[in-house]
Amino acid sequence: MAILVVGSMAYDTIETPRERRVRQLGGAATYFALAAGREAGVRVVAVVGEDFLPADLELLASHGVDLEGVERAAGRSFHWSGRYRADFNERDTLATELGVFAGFRPRVPAGWTASEYLFLANIHPSLQAEVLAAVARPRLVVLDTMNLWIETRRADLLAVLPRVDVLLVNDSEARQLSGELGLAAAAAAIKRLGPARVVIKKGEHGALLFGRTSVLAVPGLLLPAVVDPTGAGDSFAGGFLASLAAAAADRDSDDAPFRAAMLAGTVTASFVPEDFSVGGLLRRTPGEVAIRLARLTDMMVP
Amino acid sequence: MAILVVGSMAYDTIETPRERRVRQLGGAATYFALAAGREAGVRVVAVVGEDFLPADLELLASHGVDLEGVERAAGRSFHWSGRYRADFNERDTLATELGVFAGFRPRVPAGWTASEYLFLANIHPSLQAEVLAAVARPRLVVLDTMNLWIETRRADLLAVLPRVDVLLVNDSEARQLSGELGLAAAAAAIKRLGPARVVIKKGEHGALLFGRTSVLAVPGLLLPAVVDPTGAGDSFAGGFLASLAAAAADRDSDDAPFRAAMLAGTVTASFVPEDFSVGGLLRRTPGEVAIRLARLTDMMVP
Repeated sequence: MAILVVGSMAYDTIETPRERRVRQLGGAATYFALAAGREAGVRVVAVVGEDFLPADLELLASHGVDLEGVERAAGRSFHWSGRYRADFNERDTLATELGVFAGFRPRVPAGWTASEYLFLANIHPSLQAEVLAAVARPRLVVLDTMNLWIETRRADLLAVLPRVDVLLVNDSEARQLSGELGLAAAAAAIKRLGPARVVIKKGEHGALLFGRTSVLAVPGLLLPAVVDPTGAGDSFAGGFLASLAAAAADRDSDDAPFRAAMLAGTVTASFVPEDFSVGGLLRRTPGEVAIRLARLTDMMVP
Repeated sequence: MAILVVGSMAYDTIETPRERRVRQLGGAATYFALAAGREAGVRVVAVVGEDFLPADLELLASHGVDLEGVERAAGRSFHWSGRYRADFNERDTLATELGVFAGFRPRVPAGWTASEYLFLANIHPSLQAEVLAAVARPRLVVLDTMNLWIETRRADLLAVLPRVDVLLVNDSEARQLSGELGLAAAAAAIKRLGPARVVIKKGEHGALLFGRTSVLAVPGLLLPAVVDPTGAGDSFAGGFLASLAAAAADRDSDDAPFRAAMLAGTVTASFVPEDFSVGGLLRRTPGEVAIRLARLTDMMVP
């Protein structure tokens, strides 16, 4: 059961109220792959520039990530620069340098066209559609997107959504895509666009699963200190999809494995804000994962 | 098991993105008493002005609320005027006319000094302390407060907190009172000020209970449409305390009845935003309460 992800591998320059970090390893595919973990067998389709450090590729490879679909192109790697506000609930983009990502056309290696699980991370919806078309018959397709595409590439996004099983967005994106203020109404409207299930991420407030027949609200784990939340959403997706793949769930499964996957995603994402870049994810241990899952469950069961 | 509440009985002028309502029945004690319900036997200590409508007093009395502690004073009733923003998550105060509330000195009727449960709604902390001093040996004391008192009457608030069992605040107030950004740290700091338990309300995102030995996160019920959320917090308190009183819980109880009370408060509060003023609370039926409690539980259990 392999998981194929298409998305960015990038360097991020991050300013927090306490510190500034220049060109640290980031990108949706990077966070997703490390979050999903070695057992998940993640295959990455992405592009990096000439400046992408061999050590960063080796880091991913050493964690069992298959990089055959990562193209190295002439030019610079995608670079995102952002600043977090005091409470970490909002951030401002200072610069987005697409670099080699500007001309990116994803190529799915021949041996990967039978990948069972597909995570279309937040990139141009037409590229998401190309990757989707290249994979023969995935068991489950999960798509993330953002306000930029909802605003500027709405038709392309609407064209791909009917082939998506789970849409993964944050609350403001769900409202923007649906035109609905209430999240239940927003999820219902999004389901009419294609996805049978909708996950709405709410940052520190947790996440909501609007399943086929049920709704689940998972709270955020209460973190002792936030250093840098960049990548938490993509890491949620990694934990979510790894859990679904481990359960051999597909689009026709009932809601149970998806409800369990919400907890896995939440626990996985909780490691990210503890450090810059992927530091929190890399320090994760099975014992600490089990402790946090028990803590989360205890926070949820009345 | 009687519940005594001290707090405002008021008229509110509310602007929402769709409508404006002038001088509708409101006030913390009003919402609390109607939310707690007939069985709770709520006793209200408050002051109203000459303009307070007999029909509004009769409404409360007809719902089993004991108004012996409501003084009618010369002057006008407390009047609050506010405007909600488009997503209802923020509101701006347009005017606060204290009226008879400016000279309010709460008087606890002689027959009420043995009240078992005490809700000190959001008023000046010195007045909260006076009421607390007038009640002999309450089983449980719950206090609500606001940013104004945290800023301007901090010493008075800190003086009353050691005699409080549960502090009920929203997330920004918890951060302001504690100086901590993380809510777990904020709750821990607040516990050091006195209350053994802290409830942090997060509006549509639900509420957190920091109990003696456990934490519970209750999501908000997903509402089809928000008309006017004014009073939801005080109604949460009404449902919360009514549930604790029905369980004969006290400060020495374990966390179980407090966890159950969080669900009761959430379900109770969910009726408020459906209409202006107390309309949603008044239309509540036992059948609909049971349905919402089942729906909430299904959203919570992994």
